[in-house]
Amino acid sequence: MSITTENPRTNGVDVATLFATLDAVKGQPEIAKFQFRATNEWLGGTHSRSRYSGFYGAMQEMEHKHVTEVESDHPAVLVGQDEAPTPVEYLLHGIAACLTAGIANVAAARGVELTKVSSTVEGDIDLLGILGLSGGSVRNGYQGIKVTFHVEGDADDATLRAIVEQSRRRSAVYDALTQPTPVSIEVTTG
Amino acid sequence: MSITTENPRTNGVDVATLFATLDAVKGQPEIAKFQFRATNEWLGGTHSRSRYSGFYGAMQEMEHKHVTEVESDHPAVLVGQDEAPTPVEYLLHGIAACLTAGIANVAAARGVELTKVSSTVEGDIDLLGILGLSGGSVRNGYQGIKVTFHVEGDADDATLRAIVEQSRRRSAVYDALTQPTPVSIEVTTG
Repeated sequence: MSITTENPRTNGVDVATLFATLDAVKGQPEIAKFQFRATNEWLGGTHSRSRYSGFYGAMQEMEHKHVTEVESDHPAVLVGQDEAPTPVEYLLHGIAACLTAGIANVAAARGVELTKVSSTVEGDIDLLGILGLSGGSVRNGYQGIKVTFHVEGDADDATLRAIVEQSRRRSAVYDALTQPTPVSIEVTTG
Repeated sequence: MSITTENPRTNGVDVATLFATLDAVKGQPEIAKFQFRATNEWLGGTHSRSRYSGFYGAMQEMEHKHVTEVESDHPAVLVGQDEAPTPVEYLLHGIAACLTAGIANVAAARGVELTKVSSTVEGDIDLLGILGLSGGSVRNGYQGIKVTFHVEGDADDATLRAIVEQSRRRSAVYDALTQPTPVSIEVTTG
């Protein structure tokens, strides 16, 4: 599926190609099997850097247009050097960005022109869990994440809310957080 | 808790301050209640940008040393512009960075000097879910995430593996992914 600049765009979304992609996947479901990847290097202390370049999808190895690197550290109050956001903060970007992309796609498919989508994400976490000080009564992860969207466009309140709700129903990150995701860990030592 | 440069560091971790922080939290558990935050702005199509600056912790509003911005987009094969990694790829950084920080902290607390920690993370996802083409039989999120660590240091294989395992047990992101995390979504329209 290649993007053509001739197609009209709604919200920056090429709706004709989006529907054509859906038809292509219906005809050949193997296209939909993807594997995303990151590599991470420890930089010292609680500081590390990840790199994204390639992924597998549409039955082939693919490369992102740009290589992207992101870093994490712990804040000084947690005895890190605060060189970058904490690992858990990246989950907040993930949920906001996934829902926002979905809102743009769903709105475009429904013929709604958006003029603004912004959000704030808050994640509450009690560090008694990860510090091992709760006797197991406090979980390690977020106790809850709250996403607050502000959406503007050429549709009424109910229509815009329905678009957000449809995005939630189709969101990969919403599902990854709210339903258990199996994580396996393998180790080699040198 | 302030970091002093006089304390010796193991793996870049100030172990004395780490243990002092644990003691401080034991004495006043309110210190451990944190809220992390991100704000996100839609840039058009499936492209958006998040910003991290402040957070709440240790009973006060705090600012990161640097403001960090990260972006996401969908790849061209999914009718995006591939300006940045997908939202789901940020989960892969999150799990790698969280486990890596924990490995450095746990190793330091156990007196093990590490010389290398690297990892690759792979997340398998079948897009039939988010495309709404599976009739509900395929989940939207990752079907599984696999983290492969390579760890080197002045300890034997079993000791290094035990450090990784302890990091997993105390990992916020591992818990956030493998156990259900409540996510609430609120909407205002303009």
